[in-house]
Amino acid sequence: MPEGSRLDQQLEFLRVVDALKRIERMTRLIQLPGEITRRENSAEHSWHLALMAMMLVEHANEPVDLARVLQMILIHDIVEIDAGDTFVYDANAMIGKAERESLAAERIFGMLPEDQKNELFSLWHEFEARETAEAKYASALDRLAGMLPNAANNGGTWNEHKVTVEQVTRRNESIQIGSEVIWDHAKQWIERAHTAGLIETEVDRT
Amino acid sequence: MPEGSRLDQQLEFLRVVDALKRIERMTRLIQLPGEITRRENSAEHSWHLALMAMMLVEHANEPVDLARVLQMILIHDIVEIDAGDTFVYDANAMIGKAERESLAAERIFGMLPEDQKNELFSLWHEFEARETAEAKYASALDRLAGMLPNAANNGGTWNEHKVTVEQVTRRNESIQIGSEVIWDHAKQWIERAHTAGLIETEVDRT
Repeated sequence: MPEGSRLDQQLEFLRVVDALKRIERMTRLIQLPGEITRRENSAEHSWHLALMAMMLVEHANEPVDLARVLQMILIHDIVEIDAGDTFVYDANAMIGKAERESLAAERIFGMLPEDQKNELFSLWHEFEARETAEAKYASALDRLAGMLPNAANNGGTWNEHKVTVEQVTRRNESIQIGSEVIWDHAKQWIERAHTAGLIETEVDRT
Repeated sequence: MPEGSRLDQQLEFLRVVDALKRIERMTRLIQLPGEITRRENSAEHSWHLALMAMMLVEHANEPVDLARVLQMILIHDIVEIDAGDTFVYDANAMIGKAERESLAAERIFGMLPEDQKNELFSLWHEFEARETAEAKYASALDRLAGMLPNAANNGGTWNEHKVTVEQVTRRNESIQIGSEVIWDHAKQWIERAHTAGLIETEVDRT
């Protein structure tokens, strides 16, 4: 394949993934007092997550290859361009998620030269499987990134959707697989939100 | 300094830089036919740029350390949180840019533990100086990222602000310092926009 043609394919892929800037997540931008911010999109979330990975790497449970972590993060949400963002506390929406995302990966990664298509599939599957040190750490930060604005925004989507302390804990406790230090800290956010009456335990509700 | 305190500083920095999602650039999201998209923000731009760096690294003039390129890109626009985005074709707005950005870097990078503050300053100065292979390549892609939506959006901000072929060329020809292959390709976008009557040369105007 001539050089020009590889570059054409790569640039077409880079044009198509611009659409990740249009995919809305549940979480909102961090608010100033009294402010209600817009929801964040998956492209800016991916940037924030990559920056988190870079700044917090000393807290990973195991040594990680930062370049691989960053690459995994940069591509981890691209399938949402076709499959949409799925709110993690919505059990119905989670049905069929894997199939929708596989089709999306086939179409979008499939635009690239074969070697890069395979590399992106490999990074994406590695992230989803959460088995390597890099994937455990990247996945821990993905959870942390979901918690950070909620902790900062008076309970945010936890409060908005009446999620319980137990649900938030179950959803996020796998952070400790990537970083015990970070999970110890994040647990305090949940406790603080509970103490402030922003989220309830299952016992509070009975 | 105890572990908890380092993590507190890092997380506070990560909360503050969330504001990069509020900084608007001139360029717009890539449009569908007939559509006028919103302007992109500097956080989602940083994601797109990092992904470009990852996908196009084979075209760099010199071998580069991808991890360093990605880190440079992830932090390169953070100073805009205080200093704002400066439209490159607005000569007046460019006045005082360096001073505004230095103050911003002092405040924002200054929130971090000393070693990380120094590392971020070093990455940022390296990017701005464009002397290392990594900075030349990262800077080339930053220019390319400005061109990509304009080339895709019928001339975009080039057309909107009546920028000339010569201005676009002068602004972007330093791409070749990072990648001759990419500049050869990007030049064709300018030629195509000119042929399509979307931008004029200085001669066209006389």
